[in-house]
Amino acid sequence: MSLVIVGSVALDSIETPVGKVNDALGGSAVYGALAASYFTKVYTVGVVGSDFPIEHIDLLKKHGIEVEGLEVKEGSTFRWSGKYENWNQAQTLDTQLNVFGDFNPVLPESCHTCNSLLLGNIHPDLQLRVLEQCKSYNFVACDTMNYWINGAKERLDEVISKVDIVFMNEDELKAYAGKKDVYTAADVVLQKGPKLLVLKRGEYGSVLIGDNTLFFCPAYPIVEVKDPTGAGDSFAGGFMGYLAKVGEMTPQNLKEACLYGTVMAALNVSEFSVVKLANHSFDHIQLMQDELKLWMKI
Amino acid sequence: MSLVIVGSVALDSIETPVGKVNDALGGSAVYGALAASYFTKVYTVGVVGSDFPIEHIDLLKKHGIEVEGLEVKEGSTFRWSGKYENWNQAQTLDTQLNVFGDFNPVLPESCHTCNSLLLGNIHPDLQLRVLEQCKSYNFVACDTMNYWINGAKERLDEVISKVDIVFMNEDELKAYAGKKDVYTAADVVLQKGPKLLVLKRGEYGSVLIGDNTLFFCPAYPIVEVKDPTGAGDSFAGGFMGYLAKVGEMTPQNLKEACLYGTVMAALNVSEFSVVKLANHSFDHIQLMQDELKLWMKI
Repeated sequence: MSLVIVGSVALDSIETPVGKVNDALGGSAVYGALAASYFTKVYTVGVVGSDFPIEHIDLLKKHGIEVEGLEVKEGSTFRWSGKYENWNQAQTLDTQLNVFGDFNPVLPESCHTCNSLLLGNIHPDLQLRVLEQCKSYNFVACDTMNYWINGAKERLDEVISKVDIVFMNEDELKAYAGKKDVYTAADVVLQKGPKLLVLKRGEYGSVLIGDNTLFFCPAYPIVEVKDPTGAGDSFAGGFMGYLAKVGEMTPQNLKEACLYGTVMAALNVSEFSVVKLANHSFDHIQLMQDELKLWMKI
Repeated sequence: MSLVIVGSVALDSIETPVGKVNDALGGSAVYGALAASYFTKVYTVGVVGSDFPIEHIDLLKKHGIEVEGLEVKEGSTFRWSGKYENWNQAQTLDTQLNVFGDFNPVLPESCHTCNSLLLGNIHPDLQLRVLEQCKSYNFVACDTMNYWINGAKERLDEVISKVDIVFMNEDELKAYAGKKDVYTAADVVLQKGPKLLVLKRGEYGSVLIGDNTLFFCPAYPIVEVKDPTGAGDSFAGGFMGYLAKVGEMTPQNLKEACLYGTVMAALNVSEFSVVKLANHSFDHIQLMQDELKLWMKI
């Protein structure tokens, strides 16, 4: 079983209270793919400029990630620059879309046998274009962000009506639904069609909300956070990677997926860029997932 | 087994986005005692003025709560008036200490056979005075608030070094420890002597942190919050009430206590004042605790 991830591939310049990096590997498709690669075969679909360091492509390949759908275009790679004064809120200093501005995702033929798809937080129009190319996926998930909730609500409605799983954080959920209470807001999302809403709450963990499904998962207790960039993408990547591996959205599989996503997010934030995410053993990931279960056990 | 609760008894005037009440029954000792009364025999120690409605005393008695330690003093009862624009932060409009300003807690002789004690968020000097009167308690817990963390830190240090369990919310914990990270901050508290820190996170639940103990508990998913006043006190009351009942601080008992506290807090916030807290059946509380377990089950 395998997973297609469509999203941004970026070079990030990030400053946090404990350090900084320049032009470091980032982007939702990268964080998601690396996190998912511990569980299943991953196909990344995105675009980079001709300045994109070949070592980053090699890193993805080393993780067994298929990069046939990673288009290399004349020009500069998407760049994002941000600063964290507190861990929950990135302050964007600069965004240069560059080649990402004309991103037109095309799923290569190799993806047509995949069983699952994760749509990163790109424009809903692009998400819909990808969905049109999907033939026989078992399950499809989408992420989004406030920018599209405010600026492309109707197209986003259409995306949401066509996916099985929606990833949103609390602010996004409330803004999207126009409701102050998360459970009422979750109903608004679920009534559009998805089977599951995955509510991301950062340091407070996550909640799975669906028809007859309610599951609370704490965040993995990290003592030292270094860089929260990509936490949500790593979470979604781990979650979908595990689901793609097991192939079925049973309640038990969803819970396990949520725990693995939680572990991948924790690994990600404990170092800058993809340093921890790209250098781990599955045994250690399993150990962390077991620990999480222990801390939740009644 | 039985529990002594020392704290404020108040008449609260509260406005929230969904309604308001005037001179309604409140105070940490009241919320705590009512919540605990579903689990164990409770002794309330506090002070009220001569204007305190007798029906409130009757309500406590109806719950089997001993009020011998509830002193009635010439003058007016402590009054607090507040407003909520969001659920997480009360805005104090007015505080009239009245007879509570000279509160000098004295444990009546009947309390001397109790096995546990909950010190509400009164001045650390008063908390210490109560501790001096304790003879042979199995376990003692304290709550506190930012006001004492800022204004009576050394005396609070002394209280914390003498109790088994400390209840704090996230802001209080960070302010008390002078640390930004909750786990590092929790270590500061635990190194002073307590066996357990109960971290209260409002709508994000709670965490038990102790030597070899880490347990995450979600908040009970309430669709309609009406009045958050007393949520922390109801949580602590339910928690300590259950512990007093079972008599031992085993890891399993602490987890069960945490779940019961969570249920009592949820009941409390779903109505103004003590309306829901005072009118419930243990069967329903048990049902809610069972549901919580279900939503946490892996």
